Amino acid sequence: MKRIQGGVTAAKGFKAASCEAGIKYINRKDMMLIYSESPCTAAGVFTSNVVKAAPVVWDKEICNGIHPVHAIVGNSGIANACTGEQGRKLCAETAGAVALLLGIPEDSVLVASTGVIGMQMNMEAVKGGIAKMVPELSDSEDAGTGAAEAIMTTDTHSKQMAMEFEIGGKTCRIGALAKGSGMIHPNMCTMLSFMTTDVAISNELLQKALRTVVVDTFNMISVDGDMSTNDSLMVIANGDAANPVITEENDDYKTFVDALYAICEEMARMLAGDGEGATALFTVKVVNADTKENARTLAKSVICSSLTKAMIYGHDANFGRILCALGYSGVLFDPDKIELSIESSKGSILLFKNGEPQPFDEEFATEVLSQKEVIAIADMHTGNDEATAWGCDLTYDYVKINADYRS
Amino acid sequence: MKRIQGGVTAAKGFKAASCEAGIKYINRKDMMLIYSESPCTAAGVFTSNVVKAAPVVWDKEICNGIHPVHAIVGNSGIANACTGEQGRKLCAETAGAVALLLGIPEDSVLVASTGVIGMQMNMEAVKGGIAKMVPELSDSEDAGTGAAEAIMTTDTHSKQMAMEFEIGGKTCRIGALAKGSGMIHPNMCTMLSFMTTDVAISNELLQKALRTVVVDTFNMISVDGDMSTNDSLMVIANGDAANPVITEENDDYKTFVDALYAICEEMARMLAGDGEGATALFTVKVVNADTKENARTLAKSVICSSLTKAMIYGHDANFGRILCALGYSGVLFDPDKIELSIESSKGSILLFKNGEPQPFDEEFATEVLSQKEVIAIADMHTGNDEATAWGCDLTYDYVKINADYRS
Repeated sequence: MKRIQGGVTAAKGFKAASCEAGIKYINRKDMMLIYSESPCTAAGVFTSNVVKAAPVVWDKEICNGIHPVHAIVGNSGIANACTGEQGRKLCAETAGAVALLLGIPEDSVLVASTGVIGMQMNMEAVKGGIAKMVPELSDSEDAGTGAAEAIMTTDTHSKQMAMEFEIGGKTCRIGALAKGSGMIHPNMCTMLSFMTTDVAISNELLQKALRTVVVDTFNMISVDGDMSTNDSLMVIANGDAANPVITEENDDYKTFVDALYAICEEMARMLAGDGEGATALFTVKVVNADTKENARTLAKSVICSSLTKAMIYGHDANFGRILCALGYSGVLFDPDKIELSIESSKGSILLFKNGEPQPFDEEFATEVLSQKEVIAIADMHTGNDEATAWGCDLTYDYVKINADYRS
Repeated sequence: MKRIQGGVTAAKGFKAASCEAGIKYINRKDMMLIYSESPCTAAGVFTSNVVKAAPVVWDKEICNGIHPVHAIVGNSGIANACTGEQGRKLCAETAGAVALLLGIPEDSVLVASTGVIGMQMNMEAVKGGIAKMVPELSDSEDAGTGAAEAIMTTDTHSKQMAMEFEIGGKTCRIGALAKGSGMIHPNMCTMLSFMTTDVAISNELLQKALRTVVVDTFNMISVDGDMSTNDSLMVIANGDAANPVITEENDDYKTFVDALYAICEEMARMLAGDGEGATALFTVKVVNADTKENARTLAKSVICSSLTKAMIYGHDANFGRILCALGYSGVLFDPDKIELSIESSKGSILLFKNGEPQPFDEEFATEVLSQKEVIAIADMHTGNDEATAWGCDLTYDYVKINADYRS
C-alpha cells in the first residue's frame, strides 16, 4: 500500500471537471463533477443533524438503495439547506440536468452543496455550469485537482490524496477530495468528502467498510462543535480494477479497509489542521483507557474545549484545561491516576502525574507548543484501549471569519 | 416579594468582610468571609466534573452532612484544583484558621477558591487574610459589596442582589453574590455563588429548593461550554427571621422557592451577560416544545454554538446557524414546523417559517441584533413546554483573554 499523486481521478475509469458557474461571487470556481462510465456501488455517511440540506436527503435515498451511481455533482456558494420543498425540487433538477447531458438515470447522480443556507439555488447558473463541465470531463490529475479546488469555501488550501494497493493481483486505487470548515460568506462549517475507487466490491461491504473506518477518522475531528446540515462523505466504487469482487470479509476486504482507513485518517487530519482560522493541528491521544468508547469520548471532549483550543493558540502549557475537559466528558476516572503530557516535533513534556502538577521549563514548553502540530497525550492507566482525535486552535481569525456579515 | 438593595449581608444575622490577602497580584482584593453567629442549614450544588477542586470535595461533605454551618471563606487567585493530597490539606487548614478565630467548629466552615489551577495555596497569605477579616466582619451593605468584589476574576463588574418577602407574618430576605467566567491569569472559567437567607428552613427542604431552582437558572447558562473544577453554588439559612420553620412543601416553602428562583434567575443572567469578552447577553427561548426536557436541551444547544455566538457578535441575522444548532441537539423535530424569530428592545423579526426563510430588512435586523440583550425564539409547534437559556456572544476578547500566557 502506498500513497500516490492525485485525487478523485487517480482510480481507473473516473473523470472529473470543474468550472466557474457563477453561483459564488466572481472569479472563483464553484462547481465540480465526477463521472464514471462504469456503474458504481455507492456508500455514504451523512450529518445526523435533524435539519438536513436537500442534497443530503437526496443522496441518502440513493446510497440506501440499489441503484448504480455514475456521477457526483457538487457546488460551493449555496448550501441548499433550510430551503423547504422548493430546495428539494431544485436538487432533483440539478441531478436531472447532469443525467440528461450524460445519458444516465437521474437517480444515479449524487448531489452535494455547501455555502449560504436559507437561500435558493440559482438554477440558471447551476445548469450553465453543468453544460460547461460535461464536455470537459477528463481523467487527468489536473481535472481531479480542479474538482478539489472548486468545492472549497474558507479552506486555505485544497485537499486531495490517493492510495494504491493490490487485491487479487490487480492494482487498485482510491482517490479522494475534501473540503473543510468554513465559508467565504460564513454560514455553516460544512464537511464534504468524495472518494472514488476502482475496486470491485458489493454495495453492502462498501457501506460496511465506510462505517467501520469513519468512526476513528472523520468522526474524531472537530473544528467548533457545530455539526452542519450538509456534512457528507461518499465513496463510489466502479470495479474497473477488475479484482475478484469483494463480497465477504476476507483478506481482500481487509486490504481495502486498510487503504480506506489510511485515506480517511489523512483527510481528517487535513480538515482539522485547516479549520477556520487555525494556526495549528491539535491532536489528542488518550491511551490505556478502560474501553475504546471511553477513549474516544475523552479525546473528543478535549478537542472540543474552547479553553483548551485557546490555550494551544496562546502556546501555553496550561494543562489544567485539558484535565478539566477530560473531567466533564462524562467518563468516570480517577484524576490521581492520569499522566498528562504534551509533545510536538520539538520534544515532549510531562505536565501532570500522581494527582499533582509536574515541574517543567516554561520556555521549552512554549517552543514545544509553537509547532504546526501539537499532541496532547492522556495516559489513563486503567486499561489498554486508545483513541485519537484531531482539532485545531481557537483564534481571533475564527471569530473574525464567523462574525462578519453575510453581505 | 420585592428586590432590595445589597447582597449577602441583607438578610438578618449575616456579616461579611473582605481584604487584600496577597494571593493575587498586588492591589486587588482576593479574600472574603461570610459569617452567621446563628448556626445555618446549608445546601450546595457543585460541578459534576470528575476533576474536582479540593474545596468542592470539602464543601460537598459538609452540605451532605448534618453539621450546622457558620461561615463561608472564599478566595480568588488560586483555585486549589489538581493539587492532590497537599491541596486537600491546605483546604482543611483554611477552614481551620477561620474556625479558630471565630470559635466555631472546623466543619462549620465552607471554603471556595477560584483562580489558577495546578498551583498550591500560599497559606501565609491565606492565614494573614483571615486574621485581617475576622475583626472587620460587619453587617453593612458595604461589607457585602466588598465580598462580591473580592471574589471577582475577569468579571467586569461585581454581582450581587437581594430579595425581600414575607413568610408567616415575618419579613424574610435572601442575599446573594456571584462571580463568573474567567480569570486574570486565565486557567478556568469558574462560577461561584454564595447565598444567605434568614429564613428558617430544614436542611432537607433547603437542599430540595436549591435543586429545584437551579435546573432552570444556573444550569441554563453557558459561556463556553467548559465546566470548571470549582463551580459551586451554596445557600446557608440561619433562621434569624423567626418564621415558622419550613419543614414541609407548604405555601411558605413555595414563597421561599419563588424568591430563590428570582434571585437565581437574575444572577444567572448577570453571569451570562458578563461572560469572558462578551458584548451582549444572548437569551434563547424555546416555546411550544413537546417536553420540558427537550425545550431545555434545544435552548442550551443554541446557547453553546460557537457559530451562533459569533453571529451575535457580528450582529448578523444568520438564522441557519440557530436552526443548525437546534438540529444537532439530539432532540427530534420536524424543521418545517419551526418558527424562528429574533427580538430585542428595538423590535422583533420573523426569520424562518414553514420550512423556508422569510424576507426581512437587513438594516433593521442589524439594529435589532446590536442591543445589549438579544433574544432568539424558537417556536417548535409540537406541544406546550418551554425553557430559556442564557449565554453571550463569542468575541475577539474571549480568545485574547484565554490565549494569553499565564505569566
